[in-house]
Amino acid sequence: MDEQLIRDITIRVLRETAQAKDMVPHAANHIFREPGEPAIPIGVSARHVHLCREHMDILFGAGSELSFYKELMGGQFASAEIVAIVGRHDNAILKARVLGPLRTATQAEVSGADSRNLGLLVPLRDSGDITGSAPITLIGPSGAVYLNEGCILARRHIHMSPADAMRFGVKDEDIVCVRVDGPKGGIFSDVLVRVNSAFSLEMHIDTDEANAFGILTGDNARIYII
Amino acid sequence: MDEQLIRDITIRVLRETAQAKDMVPHAANHIFREPGEPAIPIGVSARHVHLCREHMDILFGAGSELSFYKELMGGQFASAEIVAIVGRHDNAILKARVLGPLRTATQAEVSGADSRNLGLLVPLRDSGDITGSAPITLIGPSGAVYLNEGCILARRHIHMSPADAMRFGVKDEDIVCVRVDGPKGGIFSDVLVRVNSAFSLEMHIDTDEANAFGILTGDNARIYII
Repeated sequence: MDEQLIRDITIRVLRETAQAKDMVPHAANHIFREPGEPAIPIGVSARHVHLCREHMDILFGAGSELSFYKELMGGQFASAEIVAIVGRHDNAILKARVLGPLRTATQAEVSGADSRNLGLLVPLRDSGDITGSAPITLIGPSGAVYLNEGCILARRHIHMSPADAMRFGVKDEDIVCVRVDGPKGGIFSDVLVRVNSAFSLEMHIDTDEANAFGILTGDNARIYII
Repeated sequence: MDEQLIRDITIRVLRETAQAKDMVPHAANHIFREPGEPAIPIGVSARHVHLCREHMDILFGAGSELSFYKELMGGQFASAEIVAIVGRHDNAILKARVLGPLRTATQAEVSGADSRNLGLLVPLRDSGDITGSAPITLIGPSGAVYLNEGCILARRHIHMSPADAMRFGVKDEDIVCVRVDGPKGGIFSDVLVRVNSAFSLEMHIDTDEANAFGILTGDNARIYII
């Protein structure tokens, strides 16, 4: 993630410079008639893995613990631990970060591009809904786990507090559309709203979605009412 | 491209099977109130390169010609020739197909994900508009060319005939929004309309955009009037 962060900062700096003229929205191209709702910061989720205790033991050694690397929203954290994800026919992704804390079930969240590279048809799911999802092999420094299910494309979602939900006029499990401005922008449909008092306001999309709309972590989205 | 085609067909077949239940749009999630305009078939453009005569000579040998591989829209074709694209700090993409026929200026079209992998800030441009675009190195079997500009993210666009343009009520260089249905769908804004009697109806997007919206070549888009 350090490398990702450095790239994001580099791009952000370059966007501010002369080269960035190409990145500036053209007023004539804007499709949106009103500024609309308050801004929601976007967090771009790179491929990652959640592990259960049993699989942590196999991959990193019995009784091993995740090392804290970076704080994330809602009490989660990026760990220093990395696994490889293997799909079909020896197609593999060599680096996927493990997020903490441990969960009751192991789950790998990849992008559509990753699923092509792995040779898998990965279903679109809400996080935690892994029944019948894609099979996956994870490899760590101490061993490997072979799972019949557990690999998903995470559905786009917005985390928010109950106070945010009231402000936006939405409730937990609502489906909304979200607008992103810019010369490569547009609207994401089918975005899940997750309301919890542990959450702070953040929309999570994957790297395909970020690249498609020219989005960096920290850019803004807006709930879009048609 | 054979490999890409096989993957697309595999995914398409799997989508039709039981596993595909996850891929079926949920009626309640649809944001669109009306079926809208006639369908436009989508073509997904993987990264590719257009070459001028001088650079063809350097990369593939003096007087060499492109070998026909697959017909594309508007008199273009995918050739059998492949080059490597090198960015900054030895970051490289090993395979980019050359499209024919030769042009007056060399141009590489990559995706946002590619531009990150190359370590470049690549501007969003209409095809052919390369002045001040990203620097790029191309490597072929006979040599390499070092270009100060020529690498772009191609702006989403729709090719159509004058008859199509009349049918859609648009004209050359119009900017439209385009809707894509499905559980991972949405709207692309800032889509350029290109009208020419040599064109058949096809919307071109890059691999990031296809993956973000779960699109395969041959899926349909619709011009969206807000």
